Amino acid sequence: MRSHALDQQLGCEIFFKCEQLQVTGSFKFRGASHAVSLLEKSCKGVATHSSGNHGAALARAADHHGLSAEVVMPESAVRFKVDAVRRNGGTVHFCEATQQAREDGLRAWVEQGYEAIPPYDDDRIIAGQGSCALELIEQVPDLDVIIAPVGGGGLIAGTALAAARSKGRILVLGAEPAGADDTARSLAAGRRVDRHHPLTIADGLRALVGERNLKLMQRFGVEVITVDEERILDAMGQVWTLLKQVVEPSGAIALAALIRAVAEEPDRWKGRRVGLILSGGNLDVDPLINTYRPAASEQ
Amino acid sequence: MRSHALDQQLGCEIFFKCEQLQVTGSFKFRGASHAVSLLEKSCKGVATHSSGNHGAALARAADHHGLSAEVVMPESAVRFKVDAVRRNGGTVHFCEATQQAREDGLRAWVEQGYEAIPPYDDDRIIAGQGSCALELIEQVPDLDVIIAPVGGGGLIAGTALAAARSKGRILVLGAEPAGADDTARSLAAGRRVDRHHPLTIADGLRALVGERNLKLMQRFGVEVITVDEERILDAMGQVWTLLKQVVEPSGAIALAALIRAVAEEPDRWKGRRVGLILSGGNLDVDPLINTYRPAASEQ
Repeated sequence: MRSHALDQQLGCEIFFKCEQLQVTGSFKFRGASHAVSLLEKSCKGVATHSSGNHGAALARAADHHGLSAEVVMPESAVRFKVDAVRRNGGTVHFCEATQQAREDGLRAWVEQGYEAIPPYDDDRIIAGQGSCALELIEQVPDLDVIIAPVGGGGLIAGTALAAARSKGRILVLGAEPAGADDTARSLAAGRRVDRHHPLTIADGLRALVGERNLKLMQRFGVEVITVDEERILDAMGQVWTLLKQVVEPSGAIALAALIRAVAEEPDRWKGRRVGLILSGGNLDVDPLINTYRPAASEQ
Repeated sequence: MRSHALDQQLGCEIFFKCEQLQVTGSFKFRGASHAVSLLEKSCKGVATHSSGNHGAALARAADHHGLSAEVVMPESAVRFKVDAVRRNGGTVHFCEATQQAREDGLRAWVEQGYEAIPPYDDDRIIAGQGSCALELIEQVPDLDVIIAPVGGGGLIAGTALAAARSKGRILVLGAEPAGADDTARSLAAGRRVDRHHPLTIADGLRALVGERNLKLMQRFGVEVITVDEERILDAMGQVWTLLKQVVEPSGAIALAALIRAVAEEPDRWKGRRVGLILSGGNLDVDPLINTYRPAASEQ
């Protein structure tokens, strides 16, 4: 998708890759379906723990391959995400809302012979997520830059791989919430940081970056732009208003990063061809719809 | 656009025509650009009064043809809609928020030689809006039904004309808010009703149906399904959630009408191929974005 208004405003040519329109509403289906497609025919089923988009994507991918998907979710998971896993054919197993309980819950399924498919720190997943940038590069010749969100690092690592194998020289930048900047700090420190207390509305980007994801980013020289919460919300509003696309906060962060980068170095960006990955559009719209209800009764 | 989930839920095949992605974010650009394209080269400029999507669409259409657009708007018009007219190249002239002041304001421009382009009760506009259904019929063979929103009646009249000239037999149904059911009452009475006190969140559908619009609906046997406010909001939520498309309340009403119709007569709709016109996506997203701000500061 394009937006003439945003091109004018930012002085570059922007190409949006719309993963909110992907199966299950986020790029996560790419990695999940790739991982599932590599399983042995004898596989009993797949399992994961998830409180987000990966669970629903894995459920759908398993369903496509005639496999069951067991998704361990914390009791605290929001109704909306639980429904998404079920709508896509997965079976939800609640556990206590601790990392330990989630891992124990998953282990029980693995011990029964189910294949664990982790959300990002996995070569099959990274390769699958890379198909998003591969498509973008095919669809848009002569891209100068691709910006993708950074959470656990599956999408950004796959993007870096895809850009590295393309003919042109495409700069890959990550976009990370300032309140969950573990990747920026890890890149600066040269190793994965321990301290990580994510504080951001971009719930898809709260995970600590994975080990192999960080290594791929280091290998391909990916840099990260951090953005504050206000900029993320502003970018989300721009995508809703100008593209008429429902994206979640995590989904809009690549645009937020570009807006920050252009504000700081307008000349560097002038006339550049920039690919932005809108990574997903899964949010609970009920609170938004409710903003209309008082008006409905008053009028 | 399609939605497997909605097809399953309603038992028919639904084809969404996405006018929220049209230039200026609604179908209104179709009629406006058609009307402007028919003007004499000597035309000094165009003028209208509008508090909605027509003003912005006319401004953009005039701009495409190198003409100025003078848009008379009530002082009470929301900031969002004023901005849309200006963003699309129109000049806004505020007047008192009365029908008389709006008409007086417009007359002043017409007396100076500007061409008045009304929003719906106009053959050029109706023909232009009809191009939406023409495209839908070309894109989707063997449609059984098309459902379109009814406000002033430009879109529904154009849709009826387009369906009448198609090879198949396509039923055309209008979708109207129960709180602004002047068209349903007019069709029942056999003449345009006088009493009209619209009470609906679907701000694009508050106008009293136009004379020629009503005549075309009568001529082609268009029937109207009315829907209450809750159903409109529910349908809007479904479009946001399942299609990831930002539609305004008026834009979602065709789906709301289908949901009501299927609930009442499921057998009649089983397996039908139904075209739904999502008429626009212009809404002020700030209140929606603000629902995220408390979360942003708390976390």
